[in-house]
Amino acid sequence: MTSIIYILGWVLIVEGLFMGIPALTAVAYQESEGFSYFIMMLICLLLGGIITRKRPGRVNFYAKSGLVCTTFGWLLMSLMGCIPFLMTKEIPSFVDAFFETVSGFTTTGASILRNVEALSHTSNMWRCVTHWIGGMGVLVFILAVLPMVSGTNMQLMKAESPGPSVGKLVPKARTTAQLLYAFYIVLTLLEFVLLLCGKMSIFDALCTSFATAGTGGFGIYNNSCGGYSPYVQWVITIFMLLFGVNFNVYYLIFLKRFREAGRCEEMRWYFCLIGGAIVLIMINAYNHAISFEANLRTVAFQIASVTTSTGFSTADFNLWPSFSRGLLMLMMFGGACAGSTGGGTKVSRVVIMIKSMASYIGSFLHPRAVKRVKFEGKEVDSDTIRAICIYYVCFAFIYVISFMLITLENKDLTSSFTAVLATFNNIGPGLNEAGPASNYAGFSSLSKVVMCFDMIAGRLEIFPVLLLFHPRLWHELHLEAVRNRKNRNYTLS
Amino acid sequence: MTSIIYILGWVLIVEGLFMGIPALTAVAYQESEGFSYFIMMLICLLLGGIITRKRPGRVNFYAKSGLVCTTFGWLLMSLMGCIPFLMTKEIPSFVDAFFETVSGFTTTGASILRNVEALSHTSNMWRCVTHWIGGMGVLVFILAVLPMVSGTNMQLMKAESPGPSVGKLVPKARTTAQLLYAFYIVLTLLEFVLLLCGKMSIFDALCTSFATAGTGGFGIYNNSCGGYSPYVQWVITIFMLLFGVNFNVYYLIFLKRFREAGRCEEMRWYFCLIGGAIVLIMINAYNHAISFEANLRTVAFQIASVTTSTGFSTADFNLWPSFSRGLLMLMMFGGACAGSTGGGTKVSRVVIMIKSMASYIGSFLHPRAVKRVKFEGKEVDSDTIRAICIYYVCFAFIYVISFMLITLENKDLTSSFTAVLATFNNIGPGLNEAGPASNYAGFSSLSKVVMCFDMIAGRLEIFPVLLLFHPRLWHELHLEAVRNRKNRNYTLS
Repeated sequence: MTSIIYILGWVLIVEGLFMGIPALTAVAYQESEGFSYFIMMLICLLLGGIITRKRPGRVNFYAKSGLVCTTFGWLLMSLMGCIPFLMTKEIPSFVDAFFETVSGFTTTGASILRNVEALSHTSNMWRCVTHWIGGMGVLVFILAVLPMVSGTNMQLMKAESPGPSVGKLVPKARTTAQLLYAFYIVLTLLEFVLLLCGKMSIFDALCTSFATAGTGGFGIYNNSCGGYSPYVQWVITIFMLLFGVNFNVYYLIFLKRFREAGRCEEMRWYFCLIGGAIVLIMINAYNHAISFEANLRTVAFQIASVTTSTGFSTADFNLWPSFSRGLLMLMMFGGACAGSTGGGTKVSRVVIMIKSMASYIGSFLHPRAVKRVKFEGKEVDSDTIRAICIYYVCFAFIYVISFMLITLENKDLTSSFTAVLATFNNIGPGLNEAGPASNYAGFSSLSKVVMCFDMIAGRLEIFPVLLLFHPRLWHELHLEAVRNRKNRNYTLS
Repeated sequence: MTSIIYILGWVLIVEGLFMGIPALTAVAYQESEGFSYFIMMLICLLLGGIITRKRPGRVNFYAKSGLVCTTFGWLLMSLMGCIPFLMTKEIPSFVDAFFETVSGFTTTGASILRNVEALSHTSNMWRCVTHWIGGMGVLVFILAVLPMVSGTNMQLMKAESPGPSVGKLVPKARTTAQLLYAFYIVLTLLEFVLLLCGKMSIFDALCTSFATAGTGGFGIYNNSCGGYSPYVQWVITIFMLLFGVNFNVYYLIFLKRFREAGRCEEMRWYFCLIGGAIVLIMINAYNHAISFEANLRTVAFQIASVTTSTGFSTADFNLWPSFSRGLLMLMMFGGACAGSTGGGTKVSRVVIMIKSMASYIGSFLHPRAVKRVKFEGKEVDSDTIRAICIYYVCFAFIYVISFMLITLENKDLTSSFTAVLATFNNIGPGLNEAGPASNYAGFSSLSKVVMCFDMIAGRLEIFPVLLLFHPRLWHELHLEAVRNRKNRNYTLS
């Protein structure tokens, strides 16, 4: 327990530091909203400082503690993060402010604001900063900057990094975390510079880069990215896609192992699926009133946006034909690569499942032949396949319960269905009343709370959140604490 | 190959015999449509007789042959069964007639007829007879009446009987098949008698009993069962539920092992889920204009109908609030018990999946403890769990492709989504344009073909149908035939 609290303290410190960015924005734009952020920054730093004053001794950090720590870290971060919105009175309702902050940190990008342009620069900057923190993960950040009690590291990384297997580039978790953040910062900067070249203001370019990097999707204009120039839209499209690629690929590129990088199976599937979807929608929803380039740009932007779970939009895809809308829904389910900042159930999971299916069908022909499922050139062990299956079962289970709770509002079924889809997969816009031209302000508080749960469950890939509902969890955590205390006493004596 | 063709011959004979029922109906009502059925009956018997004249020697019947044989049997049966509709010109289009027949045999009950009351008694009887044959399965029927080449039996039973494990009551497949049909006939007769007591005509009672027994759902009136008396509606509700129960339970009751029968875990879950759904919908969609009994009857009827995948209706549930419609959709997914005549993905699969999920979450607390999933008091082995997972993956895979093909029509997403749901799970009515007050006549031929595929895939639980698409299947069947021929020559010499 002490180690969990210690890490939560660091979460507060990191959040406090990042609140400096909106505070500085307020100085630049001379907005009074900056006070709220400055005060919350001080509170976070102070609280965090007190908690982390005493470093816990060497403790055994089990999987369960890692999972619990992650969930609480995200809850705490969201609770503290929503207070400035309440203080500035820009979002007066607590549920709304919490929804907006959870949506930010989980990189969902679903907003309850009817008019984002009315928001101060300060608050808009904070919304986009939450995306950037949430994209790669706050615990990964802590791992990168903090020499941690050993044993802790991998469990935290496991719980926060997306994908069916741990995104471990190098054996040491700390170095991995540092590399991940290095690539993350370099790519973000690159986009920022390219957007500046497109004659965007520094503020707009910074916000957009943050929101793209985290595959978040909070826009700072009411029409999201619809008003930007074609050049800017293309830059955003390309960077959305880049942030949805498995960061392993960037590591291989960094090591100059280009051929290996190009052979990454998940990345190939990812680009094939996106390419296929673009072609199909281009055929199905071709708009003869505008040029081919404009058609391609619009479709590519929307596909990149929903597949990587960013959620920006340049067109109201709710008006597309059924086939295109259906295909968008599918791409939302699949999502981006594991080990990226994107959401969804991840390309690797989908591919491994389809391969398992093919291998199973084949086993009817040769019942005794042991069929192996290969991915990225390696055999996928049965434990991983089982974990993926269970992941999907949990996914369906939470999906169904959320869907039923949201139908209580009596909105049409497509709205209810895609509202869950868009929040659970951290995308942002769904269809109909949850569509890109609409927002989540019209949903009831109950629905918003359900969606907050879905967003966090989706971002942390379900298990850490579900574990909290296990009846024996608290008892087990207590036992672990007792065990740790005994071990310590034994070491001291 | 010879043994597959031999069994297909028997399928024709059985179908020919059953065509006698509409032929007799025509005699009773003096309808000229009877000639078509009589002619087709003769053709089926003749063709079947020629094919089965030479009985193949003892051959090894592998799983793949069993699966292939089942799929072809069902296709053949549907092709022959739709010809009378074309001959009588009551359904002039081939695609429509095939759709109607597949819908009948697979016990779906989705109809392309805008006005069933215009149909002759003869054809209406044939529609309901197809439900009855399809409910328990034609191959199971053949097994019951025919002393078969050994080795064949279990594989055929496996392929046609619903559920994750084989519904084997007694060690011998033939006796199992006989018992299953015995219970099936007794229950059908019982319903027939009870319906007659409700002052139904013999024709109506017979048709309704056939359609309920197979959990089919073809109505003989345009408003399905809406015009029947409360007594009749209750009888139908109860029998729909009874035909959705695992037939193992009836075997235990037959053996007077009542306590064991009552302990059947799947049945308990089945009734709990149905009870829960009824209570929730009663609360959500209570109609104060009618009595409590009428409310309960309507809700219970609709729930029993969609859960057991029958598809009768007494109310247009499309007009219910979103929550109730959402819950109906869920019940459609779950479906009835394994080893019953009902469709859906089966209660046992759902329960085993949820238990696996709980056990997996628990394993985070005790990573080294081996968690076992128990069902019906026995441990579920990992192969079964894997098969169930793969089943759901295939289910989702086919679902997605079917859904995308149907969205090409540009109908609204709920219609497209529930049309696949209602045909794939062999239910009948979906929502919106596929709703109970509507029919499938408005769908395009492409969509109808897709839905025919879904109905057969759903009834045979996917694997037999998917196997046909395996690139090496035909090569393997050829190898098997060569092997069998060699073995025979070896035995003869």
